[in-house]
Amino acid sequence: MTPVITLLTDFGLRDGYVASMKGVILGINQRATLVDISHLIPPQDVRSAAFVLFTTYEYFPDGTVHIAVVDPGVGTERRAIAVRTAAYVLVGPDNGIFSFILRKEKSWEARVLENPRFRRESVSMTFHGRDIFAPAAAYLTRGESFESLGPVCEPVTLPWSLPVIGSRQIEGEIIHIDHFGNAITNVSLKELEEQAPAENWAVHVGEIVLVSISPTYGRGRPGEVLALAGSSGFVEIAVNQGSAADALGLRTGGKVVFVLA
Amino acid sequence: MTPVITLLTDFGLRDGYVASMKGVILGINQRATLVDISHLIPPQDVRSAAFVLFTTYEYFPDGTVHIAVVDPGVGTERRAIAVRTAAYVLVGPDNGIFSFILRKEKSWEARVLENPRFRRESVSMTFHGRDIFAPAAAYLTRGESFESLGPVCEPVTLPWSLPVIGSRQIEGEIIHIDHFGNAITNVSLKELEEQAPAENWAVHVGEIVLVSISPTYGRGRPGEVLALAGSSGFVEIAVNQGSAADALGLRTGGKVVFVLA
Amino acid sequence: MTPVITLLTDFGLRDGYVASMKGVILGINQRATLVDISHLIPPQDVRSAAFVLFTTYEYFPDGTVHIAVVDPGVGTERRAIAVRTAAYVLVGPDNGIFSFILRKEKSWEARVLENPRFRRESVSMTFHGRDIFAPAAAYLTRGESFESLGPVCEPVTLPWSLPVIGSRQIEGEIIHIDHFGNAITNVSLKELEEQAPAENWAVHVGEIVLVSISPTYGRGRPGEVLALAGSSGFVEIAVNQGSAADALGLRTGGKVVFVLA
Repeated sequence: MTPVITLLTDFGLRDGYVASMKGVILGINQRATLVDISHLIPPQDVRSAAFVLFTTYEYFPDGTVHIAVVDPGVGTERRAIAVRTAAYVLVGPDNGIFSFILRKEKSWEARVLENPRFRRESVSMTFHGRDIFAPAAAYLTRGESFESLGPVCEPVTLPWSLPVIGSRQIEGEIIHIDHFGNAITNVSLKELEEQAPAENWAVHVGEIVLVSISPTYGRGRPGEVLALAGSSGFVEIAVNQGSAADALGLRTGGKVVFVLA
Repeated sequence: MTPVITLLTDFGLRDGYVASMKGVILGINQRATLVDISHLIPPQDVRSAAFVLFTTYEYFPDGTVHIAVVDPGVGTERRAIAVRTAAYVLVGPDNGIFSFILRKEKSWEARVLENPRFRRESVSMTFHGRDIFAPAAAYLTRGESFESLGPVCEPVTLPWSLPVIGSRQIEGEIIHIDHFGNAITNVSLKELEEQAPAENWAVHVGEIVLVSISPTYGRGRPGEVLALAGSSGFVEIAVNQGSAADALGLRTGGKVVFVLA
Repeated sequence: MTPVITLLTDFGLRDGYVASMKGVILGINQRATLVDISHLIPPQDVRSAAFVLFTTYEYFPDGTVHIAVVDPGVGTERRAIAVRTAAYVLVGPDNGIFSFILRKEKSWEARVLENPRFRRESVSMTFHGRDIFAPAAAYLTRGESFESLGPVCEPVTLPWSLPVIGSRQIEGEIIHIDHFGNAITNVSLKELEEQAPAENWAVHVGEIVLVSISPTYGRGRPGEVLALAGSSGFVEIAVNQGSAADALGLRTGGKVVFVLA
């Protein structure tokens, strides 16, 4: 089995930063398969990174090690951690970047990355992705034990964006704008359907009311505004063959209210 | 032999969509080598995707599976297909995305992706790349037979952009603007040379007439406008060390006329 | 051992150019592990490519082959070369793209890529990345000898951007703006510390004077301007959780002067 390591950062694609991490990993385990999740997370936007990782991590095979580095606190006293869930290991700064996953997973164990054997010899103050996170992930795929990374710890989790659930109303928030301009909310179709079928909910976003939740993008007319359950299970506001964010001026943090008809 | 799977989409690089496809593939065949062709196809631009795939697919080793997902009709009744050519398998929506390749290949066989064994258990209405195309490609590289995918079908091909060939004139069209701003036409050097050598053709584009076709970018002065045979065999309009699209205001769909001197 | 080949170009991510190179490599050596360094080098900016490669190449395992293609002279008489250092092989156009590395490495040997066995059968005038550099790199990872590539040569090196070292002053230059807007100078912390500790140097950039060099991004207040030793060892001008290039209007080529207090 070829071990899989994924990388999620805000490092962008112009420089050699991501490649340096990959070089370090391959120097430790040349058999690793490396997969980019994204390197275009908005700089220092830990919540966006947390959401993108959350909607992606479970599609990977068991044993995958996910590295996530959006790290405004690099060089301060924030800890470097690894978290083992039933199927995966997560590696990154202890700044809440795994919050969405930890809220979902039933059980997990976290360790502080303190063992100097699993770091590069010289650790810079500004690039722990290369000097701490990449080598820790690589050594894990070579069979080093999770326990040997360092002492058990309790990771930081951030109380982001839980929907406010009322009796006939759920108040949500836009937590991600994707490449197509779809505005993804923090309200899952499952949460809505616990109260009533999808077609019974009206969706209020800005000045607009959408009278139901659609099954797909493709059935509307081009330009039509839709609410639909996106591929990650969350309800999103979309414009058929267009950008909802542009058309409606939607932004991360904007309110979206679901009302029972 | 490590099997090769390529991915071409309009999903962009900010989100986890492409990575989800890769995770699904590696979960089915962890030995697959994954290569990105592009994920920056303009949203829903099936013809651009078709052209980029057409100019790239033949450089891959025999047996490569090419997945192409630009899919404005996802969730409607458009079919999901695979096409086997002499050397490759193509996997994607049946919306014409393989038209350029099918026009070139002498023989091929297409199948509808109907067999539920080669899909994810739960298929979303909005993300067939992850739930249908990625698993079909992965199973093929694990040795499942092409015939087992589903029944034979006739794929959609679109009558895009054939040059109009006159007696002393060929009327073409710009079908792609590349990263450098080169404007690539649908007229191949081979088509021109069937009538007369390259140096005998003048090239009319907008207000400009280029008196011949150059062999390379590098021989002009910086800023000079050139027509030359690009690396894919099609004639392109270029500006030496600059962007022809910006300098001349060129766009996809613009006419380029070749006239025999 | 899986051989590693890296790719650094100015080809962008919209087209199939990079993928064509990868297809050619995998056709020659399907076991190669391919790693992108960057494909967003500004078009034809050989110095930027040289710098990004220089700050990345040593993180890869011994034996890695690095391909670098920023090549404004493609199709002219500029040579195609490979350079073997103690640990790596570099492959690309002979236009100075390896200058920073050759200035650092103690010994190396260069060869002209003349042997037709290690090219594609038909070499285009415009795409040597695909037709010359990719196959040469791939054949090397399959065990072909470096000597068989072609005759020994002396590569072009460009006298870029050496800092001017005075008695109590070092005059440097911004040689790269990274994805975060950090402005990276050509002056290394090591050079400064040969004269005096980092905290004794004031940094003059535009209208601003920074009274010392910081150890990390994270200790400043958001928005604070900092000079610090970046992850590649060079001093960079940064804004804590912001873009120094935007905030201060910094550009490649701008002067940065270090003065001993």
